[in-house]
Amino acid sequence: MKINAQRLSQHFTQMSLIGKIGETGTCRPAHSPEEKQAFELAASWMQAAGMQTHIDNFGNLIGRLDGSKPELPVLMLGSHLDSQPYGGRFDGVAGVLCAIEAITTLVENGIKPERSIEIVSFADEEGWRFKKGLFGSKGILGMLEEGDLQRADKDGITREQALISFGCDPTKLKESEYAANSIYCFLELHIEQGPVLDWGNKPIGIVTGIAGPLWLTVKLKGMAGHTGSVPMPLRKDALLGAAKVIVGLNDIVTQVPGAPTVGTVATIDVFPASRNIIAEEVVFTLDLRDIDLERRNNYEKQVRDLISATAEQHQLTYEISVDTMSEPRYCAPWIKDIIRGECETLGVDAPELMSGPFHDALALSYACDYGMIFIRCKDGISHNPLEFSSDEDLALGTEILYGTVLKVLDKQ
Amino acid sequence: MKINAQRLSQHFTQMSLIGKIGETGTCRPAHSPEEKQAFELAASWMQAAGMQTHIDNFGNLIGRLDGSKPELPVLMLGSHLDSQPYGGRFDGVAGVLCAIEAITTLVENGIKPERSIEIVSFADEEGWRFKKGLFGSKGILGMLEEGDLQRADKDGITREQALISFGCDPTKLKESEYAANSIYCFLELHIEQGPVLDWGNKPIGIVTGIAGPLWLTVKLKGMAGHTGSVPMPLRKDALLGAAKVIVGLNDIVTQVPGAPTVGTVATIDVFPASRNIIAEEVVFTLDLRDIDLERRNNYEKQVRDLISATAEQHQLTYEISVDTMSEPRYCAPWIKDIIRGECETLGVDAPELMSGPFHDALALSYACDYGMIFIRCKDGISHNPLEFSSDEDLALGTEILYGTVLKVLDKQ
Repeated sequence: MKINAQRLSQHFTQMSLIGKIGETGTCRPAHSPEEKQAFELAASWMQAAGMQTHIDNFGNLIGRLDGSKPELPVLMLGSHLDSQPYGGRFDGVAGVLCAIEAITTLVENGIKPERSIEIVSFADEEGWRFKKGLFGSKGILGMLEEGDLQRADKDGITREQALISFGCDPTKLKESEYAANSIYCFLELHIEQGPVLDWGNKPIGIVTGIAGPLWLTVKLKGMAGHTGSVPMPLRKDALLGAAKVIVGLNDIVTQVPGAPTVGTVATIDVFPASRNIIAEEVVFTLDLRDIDLERRNNYEKQVRDLISATAEQHQLTYEISVDTMSEPRYCAPWIKDIIRGECETLGVDAPELMSGPFHDALALSYACDYGMIFIRCKDGISHNPLEFSSDEDLALGTEILYGTVLKVLDKQ
Repeated sequence: MKINAQRLSQHFTQMSLIGKIGETGTCRPAHSPEEKQAFELAASWMQAAGMQTHIDNFGNLIGRLDGSKPELPVLMLGSHLDSQPYGGRFDGVAGVLCAIEAITTLVENGIKPERSIEIVSFADEEGWRFKKGLFGSKGILGMLEEGDLQRADKDGITREQALISFGCDPTKLKESEYAANSIYCFLELHIEQGPVLDWGNKPIGIVTGIAGPLWLTVKLKGMAGHTGSVPMPLRKDALLGAAKVIVGLNDIVTQVPGAPTVGTVATIDVFPASRNIIAEEVVFTLDLRDIDLERRNNYEKQVRDLISATAEQHQLTYEISVDTMSEPRYCAPWIKDIIRGECETLGVDAPELMSGPFHDALALSYACDYGMIFIRCKDGISHNPLEFSSDEDLALGTEILYGTVLKVLDKQ
């Protein structure tokens, strides 16, 4: 193995001490003193590899290794060091620390690339503090939206104030944006945050793309009545209608066996929520994802038809609102080929899989080609202190990332 | 018509002013000054009909018309004058006021029965103040349970304190109990609280019995996971499981077309209730009622099998707790026959129907034969200020009640 697995493991241990909660948990909010401390530690490792580091006005930590032809678009790697409020040690961290290890190995091996390399720890990927994520990665690409700086956290602190406290100058965001075509491609290593690799006993996965979710909120309205006195045929039971939609959604998304489509209802609120009063109104959220946008659109239509038919059958009225409608963003085939080649060289049987969750790569996909390497995590648990990926898997992923970086740099 | 419909209508209007909320609502809590005021008004009407009145130690208002053979078991009529906190003008009130009108008519017609007649306004039928109903009707039959007097309302006032404030002596409850076989039979007129009569365009219904509910609480436990990253076949989605049970329950209770069985899930709570985290735990309540206990038991078994099969299919664990398991209590065929005869005499096509909700008659059913007359209420709305029954329907029901009383008194 070319990378230094022991050093990598030590870096994970050292990083896990910052914002540590409980035995294995992490709480490093975006733009917080804990994130600043994490940046300082990561920057020290970047500098040890000969990179120049700075924090830009979006609150991103950027380490740069100048190439011999610095006018070329950069090869960018990275992920994020902020965490969920009750998060683990690997989500985001892996993409930064494994990138640092890969580039450190490159430098230690005396490789002097023509193309400059940057490792970025993007600000506020998680998004819970201001209820909107991918701030830093969208920021450098000029993709922020009206009002993003005025969003406040639960204590009333705005993003703008948080950035100023962090040492950034929000009046100079433009200076931190990247010009079009200035990024050659983006590589992100990340824990899977799902159980496919673990349950399939595979340490590594090659990501095919990020399936943007369709998020709907559905409201069904019927009529309340005494559960003892309204005969079944006369009912307008909103919860029964909702249950039929939940069951039907499951049928819709599983109609193609083996397809990666996922569909979920995970929240449901009932009014008046008394055990002997028939539900008058039910509101539930619906999450539909597929790497195949045409299929997702087809399923969306089926879901809408199902809601309409169910409402008619049970004499309900309904409203559907679209909260999020992201399109899938595909990984570049040429990068997937390189990653697959590296896996084969190492004798690793790495399945392809889509990413349901967002990552910083989603934002970068609008600016350049991208590729992602997934590391298995135990039982698919993430966003939880129980999140776990082994040193061995992380080292193996880093070795593949390192090989991928070399191949990307060699490409003309 | 023998009864005085105009007087009856005036009584409803006068009673509706006590504890009036909004235009048409009523709030008369159990053992409250408002209920006392309602008792005083009702007692004045009873006294005008020659009845002696008193409030017993359970807080029941009792009016008695002595018969020429006072040693005979009494004919008892009644219902309740307490209301839901956001209730209507007819629930309970109808059973007291229509009984007063029927007995007043009897007295005005110079009928002097051998059997004594009592009209009772039972204390705390509704049960919301101390979260347990049928207090007065259970009380006179010696059916109270350990701790019933120590139950506290939301302000911390116990039932015992409330009774003392009401002028009762809770140390002398025994004195207010009725001896076994001292009640000949019980007649209760009540609004339907369901839509069967209104939607069938029938003013009057003959009750077949009160279907006691089976109340279950079901907890399903699966495994949380990211909605974007856990493939459908690997999920343990507790909400999907719950939805299948809700849909399946509906199939079970509707398998015999036209049967009065009702089954409802009306509350559901999801953990962690985040739109992008698969539901790990779902708790819902299940309400199953049938006048046919054998069928209800059969359906309960089907429901339990369904929960078990669904849990197995989706790799969930489950717990079922029984919160209430009441048996159906049937109206006496001979009283139903009398009521039906009265309806036929008046040319009223009165369908038979079961009562899903409880009434004071449920408690009385353990002491004597009982019969119930239902009055249609608009759209089946009850426990709501919008509750409405027309003067005409109430008068018609009272006329039938009057005829029924005469026939019961004639019976040897």
